Order: sequence, then C-alpha cells, then structure tokens
Amino acid sequence: MKSDPDKKAHSGREALAVAVLGATGYAGVELLRILARHPRVKLTAVTSQQYAGKRVGDVYAALVGKCELALEELAPEKIAGRAELFFAALPHETSADAVSALLEKKKRVIDLSADFRLHDAKDYDRWYKGHKAPHLLKDAVYGLTELHRDAVAKARLVANPGCYPTGAILGLAPLYAKKLVGGMPVIDAKSGTTGAGRSAAVDLSFSEVNENFKAYNVGVHRHTPEIEQELRELAGAPVPVLFAPHLVPMNRGILSTIYVELKNAPGGGELKKLYEDFYRGEPFVRLLAPGQFPQAKDVRGSNDCAIGYHYDARTERLVVVTALDNLVKGAAGQAVQNMNVMCGWPEDEGLRELAFVP
Amino acid sequence: MKSDPDKKAHSGREALAVAVLGATGYAGVELLRILARHPRVKLTAVTSQQYAGKRVGDVYAALVGKCELALEELAPEKIAGRAELFFAALPHETSADAVSALLEKKKRVIDLSADFRLHDAKDYDRWYKGHKAPHLLKDAVYGLTELHRDAVAKARLVANPGCYPTGAILGLAPLYAKKLVGGMPVIDAKSGTTGAGRSAAVDLSFSEVNENFKAYNVGVHRHTPEIEQELRELAGAPVPVLFAPHLVPMNRGILSTIYVELKNAPGGGELKKLYEDFYRGEPFVRLLAPGQFPQAKDVRGSNDCAIGYHYDARTERLVVVTALDNLVKGAAGQAVQNMNVMCGWPEDEGLRELAFVP
Amino acid sequence: MKSDPDKKAHSGREALAVAVLGATGYAGVELLRILARHPRVKLTAVTSQQYAGKRVGDVYAALVGKCELALEELAPEKIAGRAELFFAALPHETSADAVSALLEKKKRVIDLSADFRLHDAKDYDRWYKGHKAPHLLKDAVYGLTELHRDAVAKARLVANPGCYPTGAILGLAPLYAKKLVGGMPVIDAKSGTTGAGRSAAVDLSFSEVNENFKAYNVGVHRHTPEIEQELRELAGAPVPVLFAPHLVPMNRGILSTIYVELKNAPGGGELKKLYEDFYRGEPFVRLLAPGQFPQAKDVRGSNDCAIGYHYDARTERLVVVTALDNLVKGAAGQAVQNMNVMCGWPEDEGLRELAFVP
Amino acid sequence: MKSDPDKKAHSGREALAVAVLGATGYAGVELLRILARHPRVKLTAVTSQQYAGKRVGDVYAALVGKCELALEELAPEKIAGRAELFFAALPHETSADAVSALLEKKKRVIDLSADFRLHDAKDYDRWYKGHKAPHLLKDAVYGLTELHRDAVAKARLVANPGCYPTGAILGLAPLYAKKLVGGMPVIDAKSGTTGAGRSAAVDLSFSEVNENFKAYNVGVHRHTPEIEQELRELAGAPVPVLFAPHLVPMNRGILSTIYVELKNAPGGGELKKLYEDFYRGEPFVRLLAPGQFPQAKDVRGSNDCAIGYHYDARTERLVVVTALDNLVKGAAGQAVQNMNVMCGWPEDEGLRELAFVP
Repeated sequence: MKSDPDKKAHSGREALAVAVLGATGYAGVELLRILARHPRVKLTAVTSQQYAGKRVGDVYAALVGKCELALEELAPEKIAGRAELFFAALPHETSADAVSALLEKKKRVIDLSADFRLHDAKDYDRWYKGHKAPHLLKDAVYGLTELHRDAVAKARLVANPGCYPTGAILGLAPLYAKKLVGGMPVIDAKSGTTGAGRSAAVDLSFSEVNENFKAYNVGVHRHTPEIEQELRELAGAPVPVLFAPHLVPMNRGILSTIYVELKNAPGGGELKKLYEDFYRGEPFVRLLAPGQFPQAKDVRGSNDCAIGYHYDARTERLVVVTALDNLVKGAAGQAVQNMNVMCGWPEDEGLRELAFVP
Repeated sequence: MKSDPDKKAHSGREALAVAVLGATGYAGVELLRILARHPRVKLTAVTSQQYAGKRVGDVYAALVGKCELALEELAPEKIAGRAELFFAALPHETSADAVSALLEKKKRVIDLSADFRLHDAKDYDRWYKGHKAPHLLKDAVYGLTELHRDAVAKARLVANPGCYPTGAILGLAPLYAKKLVGGMPVIDAKSGTTGAGRSAAVDLSFSEVNENFKAYNVGVHRHTPEIEQELRELAGAPVPVLFAPHLVPMNRGILSTIYVELKNAPGGGELKKLYEDFYRGEPFVRLLAPGQFPQAKDVRGSNDCAIGYHYDARTERLVVVTALDNLVKGAAGQAVQNMNVMCGWPEDEGLRELAFVP
Repeated sequence: MKSDPDKKAHSGREALAVAVLGATGYAGVELLRILARHPRVKLTAVTSQQYAGKRVGDVYAALVGKCELALEELAPEKIAGRAELFFAALPHETSADAVSALLEKKKRVIDLSADFRLHDAKDYDRWYKGHKAPHLLKDAVYGLTELHRDAVAKARLVANPGCYPTGAILGLAPLYAKKLVGGMPVIDAKSGTTGAGRSAAVDLSFSEVNENFKAYNVGVHRHTPEIEQELRELAGAPVPVLFAPHLVPMNRGILSTIYVELKNAPGGGELKKLYEDFYRGEPFVRLLAPGQFPQAKDVRGSNDCAIGYHYDARTERLVVVTALDNLVKGAAGQAVQNMNVMCGWPEDEGLRELAFVP
Repeated sequence: MKSDPDKKAHSGREALAVAVLGATGYAGVELLRILARHPRVKLTAVTSQQYAGKRVGDVYAALVGKCELALEELAPEKIAGRAELFFAALPHETSADAVSALLEKKKRVIDLSADFRLHDAKDYDRWYKGHKAPHLLKDAVYGLTELHRDAVAKARLVANPGCYPTGAILGLAPLYAKKLVGGMPVIDAKSGTTGAGRSAAVDLSFSEVNENFKAYNVGVHRHTPEIEQELRELAGAPVPVLFAPHLVPMNRGILSTIYVELKNAPGGGELKKLYEDFYRGEPFVRLLAPGQFPQAKDVRGSNDCAIGYHYDARTERLVVVTALDNLVKGAAGQAVQNMNVMCGWPEDEGLRELAFVP
C-alpha cells in the first residue's frame, strides 16, 4: 500500500496490524477499500483461495497502486503472527475453522460469516447444518454495534451481523425494547446483487437480473433466526417474524419495508420520541422525520442505516422502512465500526465518507 | 400502417375501426404496438396533446413504417365518427370529459384512466377529487376481465383496472371469494418505471432511479380503493388493505408480494384446488406449482399474470406473489382483452405473443 | 405447444417440421419465441446438453404452456428424421459435427455458429482453430439475407451471420459496392450482454457489468474476418477493418458507430440515393433521414436493422450508425428470415412484431 | 457541517473558506461530497437557483447531517466576502457573469462551466454563442492539471476542463507532444448519464435510457474545440479531431476509445516509455500495461484517469482507451485537484478515496 499522508496524523502511535481473510469477495474488497484509508491500521496480510499468488490489483483493477499486497492461501496458523486483529470474510463453515485457529493463537477476530451469530448451536443446526466449533459460541458477541457496544468492546470474537438482519433489527429494536408490538411483523426486504456475493452463476448474470425482480427464500432465508434471536432478547419473549427477501437490479443497497401491528395506537410524537431516545448519539443511525422514508441511494457507500416510520391510522399498521448499504453497514463498514469499538478508537474512524450520490 | 398479410385471414369480414386517445404515453404506444398487429381492427385515429401534428414515428422511432398515422388534437366530437371503439389512455379528469363526449355519440369506450373505476363517487372524491361525470359511473364496468367478463361483454364503458390492482386482486380474489381470509392483507408491490408514465421529472431520471430503490405513497396510493372495492364485492364485507408500492430500476413489470392471514391453516392441496378452480380456463392467468413464485421477467411483454403462493406453516401466513407486465396485463393488453370480449372475439386475439426473454 | 389459432390460416397446407439444436442458449430460446408463433412451422424437437430431460418451461418459465417440448440430448442422427429443417444454435466446433450429420441425412440446416461463415478454412484456422468439416465450406451460404438472398434460397446449409458483422456489413455494404471508400474503416461496436450468451461467469454477473462499460478483444475479435470477407467480395479487393467491440450494461441491442474515409466528398443527396438504391424493397432495413442516427431501443425485439449516416464535412469523415437487436436480426430473427427465403415464404413471415418500447 | 475529527490534524492552520455556486447540480453536489471531507477547507456558502432557501439535505438526503448549509440565491457580490476561493458549477453564460463579479472582488475562481475554456473568443462564438466576458479569457488557465500545473498554481481563474476532453486529451497528449500522429484521430466516447446533468427531461428518464444506447452530437459536440485547442498547443499545428459521444445506461463514468494513425509503427517498448515518461509522478494518471484496457468501474468514485493503449499491427492503428469518473476527474475532483495546486497543498489532498467497487 502506498504511504498515505492522512495516516501521518497518527504516526506517533504504532498502527495496528490487521489482516483480511477472504479478501476478494465483495465484503472482502470493501474491507480493503475502507482499511486502506483507515488512519490507525496497517493491512499486513490478505488471503484468497481462488486468487492466491496474485495481487489484489490483478483481481480488482481499482485497487492497483492502492493495495499492493499479494494474496495468500488461507493458512490461519501461518499468518496468525502477522496481525493482531483479523477480519474473516469467508464462507460459513470455512470460517469456523479459521476463526478457531486464530482464537487459539490469542488473536481477536471479527467474523463476517454466519458461523457465530446464533448463540444456540441448535438454531445453527436447524437453519444451516452441524456447527463445527460450538464451544466458541459462548465467547462470540453479536456485533450489531448499536445493541451490543459494551460487549463488543471486550470481545475476542465478534460475529458481524448479516446484511438483512442489520436493517431489520435496527428498524424494530426500539419497538420491542418497549414491548409495543402486538402481532407478528412482516419484513419485506429488497437487496442489491452484491448481497449474493461474487460468484459465477447464471441466475446472477446481468442478462437474467437486469429488467427483472424476484422474491426468493421467502420464510426460509437463513437470516431469519438472527433477526428472531435479537428481537427475542429485546422483547424477553419469542418473536417469530416473516422475512421475505427480494433481488433488485442494482449493485448495492438494502431497503426493508417492515409492517408492524402495535398493541396500542401511538400517541402524537410517541414514535418520534421512542426512536430518538433509543438511538440518541448513535453516529450511524439516521432517523428521518415521521412520515418520511429513506431510499437506497441516501446511504450508498456510507456506513449509515437510515430509518423512517409512519403509522397508518386507516389500517392501524406501523410501517418502518430502513435503508443501508449491504457492503458497508451490512458488512465491511460495520466490521470496521466494531474494530473501532474493540480498540477504543472513535467509532466512526475511517468511516466518515459521505454517501455516494448520484 | 403497412398492409399486414396476417390481417388477410380476416379479410372476409370488415375490420373494426378503433382509435387511441393519448397515444404517445407509454400505455398509448403499447396499445399501438398491440393493435397494429391485431387481425380484426384497423387503427383510424390517434391523438396526442403534446405531439399533435407529428406522426407517431416522430415520437417513437420504433414505429416508423409500422403506424404512419398523424397525431391529432384531442377533440372527441371531431373524431367520434371515425371509429366504433375508443381506447382512452388519458390523464384522469381529462379522460372523464372525453369519455362523456364519446358515449353521447354512442361509441364504446375502454378507459385506461382512473376516472370510472370506482363505483362510488364519494370514493373518487376521497382519493382523487370531485368527479367530473358521476352520472356515468353506474354504466361503467370494472374491466378486470377475469372477474367481470360477462358485464364487460355488454358494456359501453369499460374502466380498465390500474396496473397495481390487477396483480393484487388476481392474487387475492380466490381467497376472498371463499371467505378464507382472517386478517388485513399487506400488499408490498414493486413496479418498473414505466408505471409512472412518460414524463419529464428529475425523480424519474436515469441518474436518480438507477442504483436506487424506494417506497412511495405507502398506505395512501390511489390504487388502494380499487383493490378494496373489488375484494369487498367478493367478500361481501369491507376489506381494508395496506398497499405499499415501491419503484424498481427496471422498465416494465410489477411484482406484488402479498401477506395474508387465513382463518384456518389450509389442508394439503386445498390452496392448489382453490386457485385452479377459480382460474380454470383463464387464458391469461398462469398458476405456478405451490411453493414456486413468479419473477417479473416470466411475463414481460405478455398479457399473462403469473401467480404463486406458499403457506408458511412456521409463521402461519400465506404469501402470494403475482407478476405481470404493467403495460400489458396492467394496461394496454388487458384493454385489448376487454375489447376482444366486448366484440365476441377470441379473448386472446392479438395477445398471443410470448413473453420477451431475456 | 398449444394449438394456436393464428396457425389455422395455413392449415390447408402441412406445417413444416423444424427443430432447434441448442434451444436453451439465448439465441435458442429466441428461436423458440419466434417459431412458436410462426404460422407455417411446427416445432418438433429441441435439444440442450445442459438441460436434457427437462422441459423448456423448466429453464424459461416464460415459455410454460407455450412450448411444452422436452429437451433432448444432442443426437443429430437420432432426431434427423423428425424435422425437415434444423436450426443449430450450438457452440462452434460442436456445431460442425452436428451439421455434418444432418447434411448427410439430406436435411437443410441454418447454423447460427461461426463454423461455416468463413469460406476459406485458412481464415477459420487463423481466427478460431482447425476446422472440423472443411469439405462443407463450399456448400455453405453466408446468410446475410440482404446480400445473398438468391443463394440462400437454394442453400442446404446457411451460415447465419454473427451479430456484430450483421450491423457492420449492412452499414458499409452500399459504400463498398460502389467503391467509394478511401481508407480503412473503424467499427466501434457496442453490444448488450446477451451477445455473450447464457453463461455462468463472474465477468458477466450483474454486479460486475452494471455501472460499468468496457472494450474487449479490440482488433482481435473473431467477428473481424466475417466482416472483411463480405466487404472484400463487394469491393473486389482486400478490406481490412479495425473492429472494436464494447460491452454495454443492457440486455439486448448492438449499436455500431462506423467511421469511414471516402475517396471523394459526397455530393448533395448522393449518400441518400446510394443507400436507398441499395436497400430498396428490403423488409428489414430501415434507413433514417440523412443526419439522423438510430438508437438501440428503436429496433429492440424486431428484426430490423436501422441505418443512419452523416457526412461530417469539417473532418471529412462519413459516420454510419447501425442498430439491431443482437438476438433477432443478429441471430434468431435473421435465421427465420433465411428459413422463409429457403422455403419460398414471405420473407417477413413470423417476423412482423413491432419493436418493443419502452 | 459536523465537526470532523479528520480536520483536526490541520487545526494549527486556518481552514480556507470556499464556496460552491450551483451546488445542487451533479458536479455541485460532488464538490460538496469531496469538500466536506477535505481537511484544509471550510465550506461557507452554497448557492442554488432552483432550491434557494432550502438546505442541501432537503435536495440530497444523503447529505443530511454532513452539510447543513442553507442554499442561497446566486448573488456573487453578496457572498464574495464570505470565501476566498469559489467553485462555479453553473450553466455556461450564467457562469461568465458570476465569475466576472467574483474576479472584480479579487477572489480566485475555479469555473466548471465551458465559459473560459477556449482561449479564442471566436472559437466560443462558433461552438456556443457570443461570449459575455471575452476580456477575461486571457487570464483564464485551462485546468487540465497534468498539462498546465504551473499556470494553474498562479491562476486567479481556472477553467476546469470538460469531462470528455479530460479523457480524450490525456489519452492523446503524449503522442502529440512527440509529434507521432499521422492522421486525424477518431474519439469514440461513451458517458454515463450524470454527464447530462440533473434535469427533468423525457430523454433522460429511466424508461428511455435503460435498455438503450445511442450516439448524439456526433462531430458537433461542444467539447470538440477544447480537445482541438489543447492538442494543437502540444502539436504546434492544427489538430482536427472527430469526436463522437454516446450515452451509456450507467450513472457515472466515461470510457473513450481513441483510434490513431501513427507516422511510424512504434518500436518495441516505445509507447510504454512514451506514456511513462510523460506521466511520471502524476498522482492521478494510472497507466496500464501495454495491451490492457481500463474499464469504467476501475476508477468510479476516484480522481484517477486510467489509460491503456494497444498498437494493432494488423491494421496499423494505435487504440488508446481512457476511463475516468465524469463527476470526479471529469469535474469536481479535478476542480479540487486544481484548488490544491493553487493553494500549494499536496495535490491529492482530499482526493485519496479509492474507487468504489463493485
């Protein structure tokens, strides 16, 4: 990586050595994009099963001259000594093994896979299949920073949330924390294509996705139990949700439209106060005025999650709409936010870029 | 229009003279595309307020040599004598005046605007504003062909349904006809941009719509009362619905994801039988196997409405997904389908083109 | 395939049995779309290496109920008896074998691959590699219908042109036929993604193609020798061209911008007369007024090639722009056009659909 | 604007007060995005004719909380006192007046309009129309930083280059500087839609641009004389060029494919040496290995111009392909680069963000 004058500001201090496992997937390269400009870290190792031996710039021309590291095989024990903190952006199952190895070497890990998000191995078995390192689940902190900041600060293993759950949980958390919800919420979520990862598949080819729109995995998507787990903790009771994801012909962004029945019609200003109180001081939650809804482009490229809500008195339903960039707040950005918390740095360090419009 | 050999098949008979008012909007030009190839009609007049004096091909190069009519001012009394059946693809309010004039001249009219869809002028006043020809409402037939075929056949004035209501009602009708629904349905609909019409607006510009996704008019969209009216008739009781439209960066297509609570969990095969019985013999309703959902591209360019449904036992909700092309089954195609019914022709005459993939 | 009333018009006569080899690629499915509605043919067999055993509708939901044939293994000798005319939409090399087998069985073949387009096996060797059936080259007719109509009519083997060459050659042919060109033309062509076929490749995934634009195979694209061969025949002398293709984030369409040096500045009206004389009576060539250029959408879904030209006196260059739909005039549509010519039917039979706007 | 900790690094020094005229167009808001994070400036005034009285965030939700300035009427004399350096992102003609007023107040101005790019008022008259402030032309420096860095450093008025000319000139400059070109170059350029600005126009609506591709203003585009002026200066002789722009269905990016005849076939490594020598040390020119071409996405969101070149020996033509983000290096980014040079700051200050992939 080129010497970056912005990093000089912190030169008094030693930059933290960090590594990215799975650096050529979309979450991985977004981590590189953010970390390359983060003033307190130094990227020391990057791995890629598919491109080991090449340089990052061979895979992503956009990074030529910006990140000149060579991609290595995934050999956690071999690179454990080269960094203090590891981002694992690996497929699930593959991740469990790598994370185990790194934790044994006393490294801190932020895992972007699904492997450590569910506290109960039985939930994992039900939605995925047999967990490969269930003994680590007790140590993992679910890294939705806004809900678990203190635990994240002390964690050795942070399970970075899924992209969909981040938007769904942030939209619903204030309501469940105050026990206001009266029925089962419906979460109709729409994601850009990078959420499906970087893969060679006819279904994801431009000719198939462009001029198309579809629902998939309705009611059975693996992000469902994450959402239910976190809402259950807030509510103190089981919270089933109907989660229905859709694929949008755009690269980045998730918009979640959430339909909620409340126990009582909210009084004037009640929702506004509720959301403002719950998210006061949060650097990355952007609340809209009541009745206004965010759009995907409002947050593209930024680590913000924008939240709008509207109580429709005619149908007696609350509609909450949240928008985030699935690769930033939904993945790499939130991972860096968690790193900042773990290291005691300003939470928005390296994450102050504005949304990218138009 | 060029002489078209396909039309010779019907040359024994006189072709019906038809006209299109508002021929340069997207529904209008789609009417031209279909009617130009319809073997039983002859297009005799086309109007356009914005382009009067030009030829259709001056506005849409795709139609050069295919439809050589000159665009005229909207003067219903002047062109009433030139056709027997009129398609009005005009803005609401403008349409009411034109339709009145044509009906006085004893012409049959298929109106694609919202002006005659609601039976009750008070509903129109509430969702739009003061109706300009309430005395005609009693004669208008809501032209969702599958529900009102017999009335359409005899109608002098057919109110062609809105694009969103077509997908929403077709998805829900079998359930309400059998009184199976237990709670208020949520209709989360996603439309391509042609649904917003052909207009110069920053919000609809490519740079704003591309790489974006948004909800709009949630709970207050004017297509809501149409949906409620038709479901109420089927149910024999008021049916409030929460209708939430969204804008997708694609040209054509509407996908509606509909969440329904049933009074009782459906027995094995019950839903399949219900939908098959209700839509038996329908040329334009395509039912998918239980558990399968349609995609927007499955019907693009065709007059089909594809319907999929899945009962999610875990959350005790039925999810119905419908897909249609907003300009075909959602507008021009359904209008031609209605014309075919009004004229006693095969219902799919001129509408047998296959969906356009990829 | 459903019985189609449009086909009754020709029921006095026996429909021609045709088959499509490679029916699930994009050119293949476009052939199905067109042939399913063609009033003089009956589709009797379809093959697909990848999906043998499935039905067409299992691969393309859009064709459920429209084409109910089962996909078979590619076994030319086995299906040779089931049809009179075969469309081969196979990869090159695979095609040569299948075509050989069918010709031996005295069948007529329209081959959409590159295998029989180049008359000289040495050209094939240079741009592809060793030809598998060079003895058939002398029988193959290059199926750019506008140039070789008479030979196509009598051909047993038609080599359907590449998508790029169709637009390039049609734009330049009148100039070379009259020996007006003074220097080497530059053909800067831009294609939608379906031109790359239906394949699982990261480079063709939505996330990579959307919001991107690139050149590829500049100067070395395999369509180059086709263009040079046809122009050479017209010019009676070698015609090197610089052909530079680009990938556009859209599904369908090729726009070719062609830069030409003329021996002499054209006189007033000279170019108009030249193009009009050359293409007089052509059903699928649409000439624009001098100074006007076509857009991709003007021909989308139709078999037209639109041609515009403008002589820029300031720089003394002629610019010719051609637009076509790569899957129609650039592949399946032109193949059907050739079939019509081979069978002595109206050349536009089954090809009268209007372009699909918007 | 929020207090930004990144700016603390420079707090010893006073931040420079800057203003943006025309802040709600696409170049304007891109200036805001960059300047809001630039550590050495403080944004003190923003104007917008269309939105005066509103806040930036009312027009671009993405900037809520990031830039809280109120938009003002364009009244240069009124705001002249509030900043030291002004960015004018106004329509041409409007700009000339505003710039005049600011220069009289002894302010430095970077003008993003076309008003001061052409040194000769007669050129302006020919391609635009009568210049409103021809007396200022002699003071204006054409702000293609790589060519005129020293003059920019001392300039009071910098005419920021057009988006197309930036890519065209950077691709050709080394060749003309060494007098290698033998014929007239053809510049076939392809731009995303933001190049057309933020405007309400049917032609720019999503439904018209999506699934379309077109050429426009071929040979007569107003960026032509800029390109010719700069190349003429390098060549020491007139350099006519044929410039042909096209519209791509993407938001950002310009890819220019440039066809050049050389006086002599280049020797091995000659071109590589030529380009490397010419651009040695340039922070924002990214040279690719010979034979490789850049893609639009390689530079999206960054201030880089990527350049690839390939000599096609078969056709004896050099093909140069350049890629840039039209809103960054093609507008706002280059303007900030010029500001950095004018102020003696590191040239890449505030411009070190990596390209935005995918």
